[in-house]
Amino acid sequence: MNVDGRPYRTIWLGDDGWSVEIIDQTRLPHAFEIVRLTSLDEAARAIRDMRVRGAPLIGVSAAYGLALAMRADASDANLTRACSALAATRPTAVNLRWALDRVRKVLAARSPPARAVAAFAEAARMADEDVETNKSIGKFGFDLISRIARLKAGMPVHILTHCNAGWLATVDWGTATAPIYTAHEAGIPLHVWVDETRPRNQGAALTAWELGGHGVPHTVIVDNAGGHLMQHDQVDMVIVGSDRTTATGDVCNKIGTYLKALAARDNGVPFYVALPSSTIDFTMSDGIKEIPIEERAADEVAWISGATEQGEIARVRLVPEGSDIANYAFDVTPARLVNGLITERGVIAATRNAIASAFPERVISK
Amino acid sequence: MNVDGRPYRTIWLGDDGWSVEIIDQTRLPHAFEIVRLTSLDEAARAIRDMRVRGAPLIGVSAAYGLALAMRADASDANLTRACSALAATRPTAVNLRWALDRVRKVLAARSPPARAVAAFAEAARMADEDVETNKSIGKFGFDLISRIARLKAGMPVHILTHCNAGWLATVDWGTATAPIYTAHEAGIPLHVWVDETRPRNQGAALTAWELGGHGVPHTVIVDNAGGHLMQHDQVDMVIVGSDRTTATGDVCNKIGTYLKALAARDNGVPFYVALPSSTIDFTMSDGIKEIPIEERAADEVAWISGATEQGEIARVRLVPEGSDIANYAFDVTPARLVNGLITERGVIAATRNAIASAFPERVISK
Repeated sequence: MNVDGRPYRTIWLGDDGWSVEIIDQTRLPHAFEIVRLTSLDEAARAIRDMRVRGAPLIGVSAAYGLALAMRADASDANLTRACSALAATRPTAVNLRWALDRVRKVLAARSPPARAVAAFAEAARMADEDVETNKSIGKFGFDLISRIARLKAGMPVHILTHCNAGWLATVDWGTATAPIYTAHEAGIPLHVWVDETRPRNQGAALTAWELGGHGVPHTVIVDNAGGHLMQHDQVDMVIVGSDRTTATGDVCNKIGTYLKALAARDNGVPFYVALPSSTIDFTMSDGIKEIPIEERAADEVAWISGATEQGEIARVRLVPEGSDIANYAFDVTPARLVNGLITERGVIAATRNAIASAFPERVISK
Repeated sequence: MNVDGRPYRTIWLGDDGWSVEIIDQTRLPHAFEIVRLTSLDEAARAIRDMRVRGAPLIGVSAAYGLALAMRADASDANLTRACSALAATRPTAVNLRWALDRVRKVLAARSPPARAVAAFAEAARMADEDVETNKSIGKFGFDLISRIARLKAGMPVHILTHCNAGWLATVDWGTATAPIYTAHEAGIPLHVWVDETRPRNQGAALTAWELGGHGVPHTVIVDNAGGHLMQHDQVDMVIVGSDRTTATGDVCNKIGTYLKALAARDNGVPFYVALPSSTIDFTMSDGIKEIPIEERAADEVAWISGATEQGEIARVRLVPEGSDIANYAFDVTPARLVNGLITERGVIAATRNAIASAFPERVISK
C-alpha cells in the first residue's frame, strides 16, 4: 500500500536481482528504513528480531531466506540446516513451517545446481499468491463492511482492530486490513479504532502508521478501552488477524484478542477474523489446550521504545527493578466467540464443518 | 505500608505542624520523592496532576487543601472559592465532592477564626477513618482469600488486580490491596498478577512498586494477558478497586476493568471489588448510562515516561504524529459481572437490596 503516496510491498528483490529488501518494522513509526538481506543468517535474524513479522510475511521471508541459503550452498546438508535455522526463529508461527515445507519440497526434487533459481522463483510465487489471497479476503470482507454501511446511511462504519494484521504483516494489503483498504478505496466512509497492542505496540506503531500512510481515518486507543467503546455503540464490527486457527475455528492471535472477543459478544458487536487458509492448522481441534503459546523476553514488557522530543529512538524502563514479569505473546479466542472467518474463499462460520467444506483438500482424515 | 522497611502513609503533616507532605506518585517507581504542599493552589495542582491519586487519597488531600486555604484566608468567600477549585480538579471522583461537603459543613458552622484548626482536625480525622475503613476491608477480604487458600492446600493463591487500588491510592493499606496485605501478613502464601494498566501504567509503576516494597510476591503483565491466564487456571480471584459504584452495584473503575470482569466470568474466576462505602453513589442506578467518563489528554497515550539506561526519567513518543488518539480514563463493569463488593461492613452482593441493607442510612428515598 502507499507510504507518502508511493506504493510499496513489505519484501522485494533489490536492484541486483538477488538480495532481498525489507522494511525494518522495529524502527516504525519513527523511521522508515529499508534493510538489505544477503544471507540465511541475516534473514533468520530479521525474522527472530521481528524486523519482519506477521504470519504471511514471516512465511515469505523464510522462503527468501532459503533462497539466499541455496545461493550460498545448495547442498542437501545446507538445505536441512537452513530449514532448521529458519523454523527455530518463531516457534508459534504455523505458516513459517508451511512455507519451509513447500519450498523444501520444490528444492528436494531438483539437483543442487538448479536449487537457487528454483528457490527464488518459488519465494516470488508465494509473495504474489499472498497478495492475491489478501485481495480475495479484502473482497469478501468488503461485503460485510458495505452491508453495515448501508444500514448506517452515510455515517462512518467504526471498525476495531487489534495488533497489526495490516499490509505490513503480509506482502501487501494485509489480512484484517484488506477489507478496510478495499472499502476505503471504494469510497465507503469508515473509521478504525486501533488498539495500541502492548507490549510491542504493533497497533500504535504499525497499524496507525500504515493506515495514516494510506489516508484511512483512525484513532489510537489503549488496549483497555475497547470494551468501553462497545458499551457505548462506538464499534460496529471487530476485524482481527490470526497466527493460527484450529480445524474447529479457535483463533490464536496476539495476546488480548480474546478480551476484545468477549466484549464484542457481550455487546452484540460482530467479531470477525481475517486469515489466509495457510494459517489453518488442521491437526488441532482445541486451541486453548493444544496451541503452544510463545513466552517472550521480560524486557519487552519492562522497557519500551519510542521517539524522544529530539526525534531520536530511545527506550525507557517502565517496571520497577525486582518485579517479576511474564510475557505471553498470544492468546486463543474460542470459536464460539467468532462470528465469521474471512478467508480467500469467502466468509465462513468458525466451525469444523464449515472449515472442512471450504477447504476439503486440507482436511486430515483420521 | 513499608517502603524499604520503613512504614509510611501517603499524606501526613510536616514537622512544622501545618504543611502537608505527600509522596509524588508521578515519580514512582523510578524515584521516591516527598513534596510539601503549603497552599490551596499547590494542593489543587497535586490532585489535578495526579501526584496524589486514588479515590480515598484524593478525598483526604482535598480536605487538607481546604485546611491550607483556611489557614491563609478563612472567609466565607474563600471557603466557597476553595471548594470550587478543588472540586474542579478531577470531575469523576465522587468522594472528592463527598470530602469537600463534609469539611465545608464543619467549617460553615464555625466562625472564620476557628476554621483553620477545625479543618486540619477534620482532615486528620478523615485520614484516620480511611485507614480504619481499609483495615476492615482487609479483614473481610482476608476471609475470601483464606477460604481459597484452604482449598489450595499450601499452593499460593493467585490474585489479579488492575490499576492501583493500593495503599498509594489511600492513606494506608489500600482497598483492593488491603485483603492482600492482610493475608500476606497472616502468612497465607499468595502471588499477585499486576496489570500494567495503560495509559498511565499505575499497575506497573505503583502497584508493583508498593507490593515489592512490602515484600509481596508479584508479577507484572500487560493488560492484554489476564484473559489468557484465566483460561489456563492461573488466576484464583480478581480484586479491583472502584472510583464510583452505583446504588445497584455497577462499578466505575480504571479503563479496562470491564474486560477483566468479562474474562473472569467466562472462566469461572470470582471477581471482587473492594471499596469504601464513601465511593457509593446512591443517586445513580445505571452506571453505563449515567456515570460521566473522564476523557483525558491525548498525550497520556501518545507519550510514556520511564527511566533511561542512565536512570533519568524521560518520555518517549509511541504514536505516529498525525494519528488521532482517544483517552477514556474509566469504564463501567455491570453489577451482573461482580461476585461481591468488599466493603468496610462486609462482603455484600452487587445488588440494590444488598447495598441498601448494608448502608441503610445512605439510601435516598424517592
